[in-house]
Amino acid sequence: MADTAVQGMTGAEAIIGTLAECGVTACFANPGTSEMHLVTALDREPRIRSVLCLFEGVATGAADGFARMAGVPALTLLHLGPGYLNGGANIHNARRAYSPVINLIGDHAVTHRAYDAPLASDIAGLAKPNSIWLQSVDNVADAGRLAAEAFSATYGPPPGPVSLIMPADTAWTKGGSIVRDARRAALKPPSASAIEEAAKAIRKAKKPALLVNGTGLHAGGLAALARIKASGVGVFSDTFMARHSRGGGRFAPDRLPYFAEMAIETLAGTDLLLIAGTKKPVAFFAYPNTPAEFTPRDAAVITLGGPESDSAAGLAMLADALGAPAAPTSVPWSRPEPPRDDAFNPFTIGLALAAHTPEGALVSDDGVTAGLPIYLCMQAAAPHEWLGHTGGAIGQGMPVAVGAAFARPDVKTICLAGDGAGMYTVQSLWTMARENLDILTIVFVNNAYRILTIELARTGAGNPGPTANSMLSLGSPEIDWVKLAEGMGVSGEACSTLPQFNDALSRAMAHRGPRLIACLIPGS
Amino acid sequence: MADTAVQGMTGAEAIIGTLAECGVTACFANPGTSEMHLVTALDREPRIRSVLCLFEGVATGAADGFARMAGVPALTLLHLGPGYLNGGANIHNARRAYSPVINLIGDHAVTHRAYDAPLASDIAGLAKPNSIWLQSVDNVADAGRLAAEAFSATYGPPPGPVSLIMPADTAWTKGGSIVRDARRAALKPPSASAIEEAAKAIRKAKKPALLVNGTGLHAGGLAALARIKASGVGVFSDTFMARHSRGGGRFAPDRLPYFAEMAIETLAGTDLLLIAGTKKPVAFFAYPNTPAEFTPRDAAVITLGGPESDSAAGLAMLADALGAPAAPTSVPWSRPEPPRDDAFNPFTIGLALAAHTPEGALVSDDGVTAGLPIYLCMQAAAPHEWLGHTGGAIGQGMPVAVGAAFARPDVKTICLAGDGAGMYTVQSLWTMARENLDILTIVFVNNAYRILTIELARTGAGNPGPTANSMLSLGSPEIDWVKLAEGMGVSGEACSTLPQFNDALSRAMAHRGPRLIACLIPGS
Repeated sequence: MADTAVQGMTGAEAIIGTLAECGVTACFANPGTSEMHLVTALDREPRIRSVLCLFEGVATGAADGFARMAGVPALTLLHLGPGYLNGGANIHNARRAYSPVINLIGDHAVTHRAYDAPLASDIAGLAKPNSIWLQSVDNVADAGRLAAEAFSATYGPPPGPVSLIMPADTAWTKGGSIVRDARRAALKPPSASAIEEAAKAIRKAKKPALLVNGTGLHAGGLAALARIKASGVGVFSDTFMARHSRGGGRFAPDRLPYFAEMAIETLAGTDLLLIAGTKKPVAFFAYPNTPAEFTPRDAAVITLGGPESDSAAGLAMLADALGAPAAPTSVPWSRPEPPRDDAFNPFTIGLALAAHTPEGALVSDDGVTAGLPIYLCMQAAAPHEWLGHTGGAIGQGMPVAVGAAFARPDVKTICLAGDGAGMYTVQSLWTMARENLDILTIVFVNNAYRILTIELARTGAGNPGPTANSMLSLGSPEIDWVKLAEGMGVSGEACSTLPQFNDALSRAMAHRGPRLIACLIPGS
Repeated sequence: MADTAVQGMTGAEAIIGTLAECGVTACFANPGTSEMHLVTALDREPRIRSVLCLFEGVATGAADGFARMAGVPALTLLHLGPGYLNGGANIHNARRAYSPVINLIGDHAVTHRAYDAPLASDIAGLAKPNSIWLQSVDNVADAGRLAAEAFSATYGPPPGPVSLIMPADTAWTKGGSIVRDARRAALKPPSASAIEEAAKAIRKAKKPALLVNGTGLHAGGLAALARIKASGVGVFSDTFMARHSRGGGRFAPDRLPYFAEMAIETLAGTDLLLIAGTKKPVAFFAYPNTPAEFTPRDAAVITLGGPESDSAAGLAMLADALGAPAAPTSVPWSRPEPPRDDAFNPFTIGLALAAHTPEGALVSDDGVTAGLPIYLCMQAAAPHEWLGHTGGAIGQGMPVAVGAAFARPDVKTICLAGDGAGMYTVQSLWTMARENLDILTIVFVNNAYRILTIELARTGAGNPGPTANSMLSLGSPEIDWVKLAEGMGVSGEACSTLPQFNDALSRAMAHRGPRLIACLIPGS
C-alpha cells in the first residue's frame, strides 16, 4: 500500500477518501450526532453516493443486496451501539450470504468514553460475533490504513461484513491520510488433487450427488453443472443461495428441500456427496426425532471447497476431469403464458410472475412459505438473478431489493415479501420512493406467520391454544399494505384474483419506479 | 428457594411456570420455530398474557414501558440472535432506564449447535454487553432455577435487562421443575453517614445544588425535593428520566439542559453538587472545545447514592437532617386554557396538550426536539407520569407507550414521537390496534432529523452540502402518517393549525383506544 499524506485532512476525510479510492461507490446511512463529520466528508466525496434509510436494518440489508449485484462492498453508516443493533439482523444475513459489507459505526469521542454517557455501549462486543474483521480508529493517523484494511478484509475469503468503529474525535481531528491500493482477495482456486480425487470417486460411485452454492450458481457456473449432471451425477443446490442465475431455459440444479425429512429423502441412497462452495447439508432447525445431518450415514463426502472457494472454477475443472460431455447450458425457451382462470395462491402467483418477469430482473426473496412455490415456478421465467435468503432472519427482502436495485438501475428488481417478513423492515418502501428505485414489491398477505403454523406441528409443541394461535396470526387487525405503501410514497394496489394480478403485473412491469402489489391470499 | 418437582414437565413449562410464580404477568413476543414449545407453554399459563409484536424492538421497548409502570419485569420472547439484535436498541434503552426486563431468547437445540445452521450465532456474545445477567439453560433440570434467578437478577440493584437463553431441546425435554420464592431485591437504602456529611456541607456551601433521578422523581419523592429546595438548595433533575411524576401544581425540579454549554451555564457557580439516584452529569455527546463534565471544577461533589439507590428515601432523610421546612409539595392548580390563535409549533402544541391531558395520564417521550418544549409546557398539565428517554436510541416512544398502556389500562397513555423516531418502530401501531390500547400517539412531522441539523453545526462538521442535507431530511417523499396508522388499524388525523389540533385532542381524549394525530410542523 502506498500512503499519500494529505496535510490538514481529518480522520473522517481520510476514511471516506480511502474507501472511495478503494472503489466504494455507495453508502446506506442513518447517521447521528457522532457521525456528523463523516456525513460532511461524504458531502465532499462525489464518488460515493449516500442513501438515507429510515432504519438501520434497511441500510445493512441494502449493503448486502448491493454487494450481491456489484461484487464490491457498500458502506453503511451507523450510529453507535444501538445503530449497529438495529442493523444487526441483516448483518447476520449478510454474513450468511458471504456478502462483503463495510459497517462504519460512529462512536463517542475517545475522550468521552470514560463518562459512560447515555448512548455509550460496548460496540466492539456487540459487533464482534457477526464481524469477520473489527477495528476501532482510535488514532487519526491510522484512519486511512484501517479503512483500506477494512475494505480488503471484506473480501475474506470468504467475504463478509466487517466493522470499522470511528470515534467522533478521530473523525474531526486533522492528521489523516488516504491509503491507496487496498488488496481485493479472490475466492480460493480449487485444489487440483481434490478434483482428481472427486473424479475418481464419481467413476466408482453408484449414486453420486453434488451439492453446490456460491459462484457455481452464477451464470458462469451453469455450464459445468450441466456437464456434471450429464455425467450421471445428481446436482443439487443448497436450499438458500445468495445469488442464483435462473430462467430462460438455463440449466437448473434441483433445490435441496427446506424440510429436514424431505431433504433426507432427497439424498437417500447417495453413496458419494460432493460439496462445492458450501458445507455439508444440515437442518435449518432441530426437531425432536429427526436427524440434523442430511448426508446419508454410509456416503463418502468429498469437498471441492467451502464458501471461501470459487465453486464455478472448481466445477469446470471437475467436468473436464470427468471428460463430461458438452451438455447444453440452456434449452430453447419461450415466455410462458400466464394462468388466467384458476385459484389465487402462491403457486399460481408464481406462474403469473414467471410470465411477466422481464429479462435480467433481480428477484429478492423474503417470501417465506410463498417463496418456495414461486421459486419453482420462476424457473420458467426469463433469465433473472434470484437473491435468496441465506441467513434466516426475516426482514431481508425489501432492504436487499433496495441495494440490488441501486447497484443495477438498468433492470427491474422484484421483491417477494411475506407479510410478517415485510413488516420487519417496512421502512424500506420510503427509500424505494426517495431514490425512485425500479422495484416491484409483491407482498403475500396471508395474515399469518404461516411457516410457524407448520413448524409448530413439526416441533411437536402440541396443539395450539388461543395464545399460540394469536402469536402466529397477523389478522386482527389486518394490515392494509396499499395504505402503508402510499404512506411512504409508493403507489400500490391489492389483488385477490389472478386476472387482477395479471393486470397489476402488466402495469407494474411497464412502469419504471417503485410499486407494490399486495396479494391477498388468506389461508395460503 | 423451594423446588417443587413436577414429573413430566418440560423445560419450557418449567420456565414459564416459574416466571408466573414469580409474578410475571406479561410477555411481549415475536417467536420463531425455536420458541414453539415456549409458545404452547404460554398457552397453558393463564397468569401471563402474551402480546404479539411485529418487530422485536416493539417487544423490548414495551417490556421497558411495562416495568416502568408495573414495577415488575415483563418477559420478552425473542427468536435467536437476530431476534435479540432486532430488540437490542430498546434493550440498550431499558438498561439506561434501569428497567427490569427478562429477555427470553430461544436458541437452537444444544445438539444442533455443532452444525452452524443458518440462524446460528453467538447469542451470548451479542447479548452480553446490554445484559446485567445472562445464562443459557443447557440442562432441563436447571430451567426453573435459572428462570427464578433471571427474575431476581432483573432487580439488581440497579435493576436492568437480563438474558435467559433457552435452547429448543431444553424447552421440549421433560425433567423441569418450577421454582418458587424468587428474591426481589430492593433499591439500596441511603447511607446515614453520607446524609450527615451532605447536610453539613450544605450548611457551609454558598451555592449548593442537588441533581436527582430515580425514585426521587416519583410522586413519593417530590415532598422531600420541595423541602430541600426551600432550604436554599438548587434542585435539578437529570435531562432524561425513566419516570417523573409531574403536573397538577406539584413541585418540579429544574431540568438540566440537554446542550452541554447550557448545562454548564446552569451549574456555574455551584460550589457543592449533591448527587441522588444518578451519576455526575456529563454531556450526551462530545463536542470539539466543549467540556464533557458539567460539574464546576471547584465544586465539591457528594453522592447520596447512584442508580442502585432509593433516592426518594435518601432525600427524605436529607430534608430531615437539614431541618428543612415542611414546604408544600404542590401549589393550587387549575387546568389551563388551551391556546387558540397562535402559530402551530412544538411550544403551542405543548400548551394545548397540557390543557387537554387527563389526570393520571402516562406520557412516553420520543419527541426529540419537539419533546423539549413540550416537557416545559406539560408542567402546567394535570398530574401525569412522564416516561423519558434515558438511553438516546430513538424508536423507544411508541413501544414504551405500548407496555405502559398494557400495564395501566385505566388511564390514557400519550406517546410523543418525532417523525424520524417514530419510523424506527412504526410497527407498534399495529399492536396498539390489536390490543385496543388507550394510546394517543402524537407525531411531530417536521420532515427532518431536526436534532441533527442542530448537532451538525454544534459538532463543527462544516456547512452541510446536498448530501448532508439529504441525510438529515425526511421530506421527498413526505410520510403520510395518517395512512401509515390506518394501514395498521389505528385511526388518525393530521393537523396544521391550533384549532384543528385542539379539536383533534378533544376527540382523542374522549375516545378510548388507539388514535394518532400527525402534527404537521414543517420547519419546526
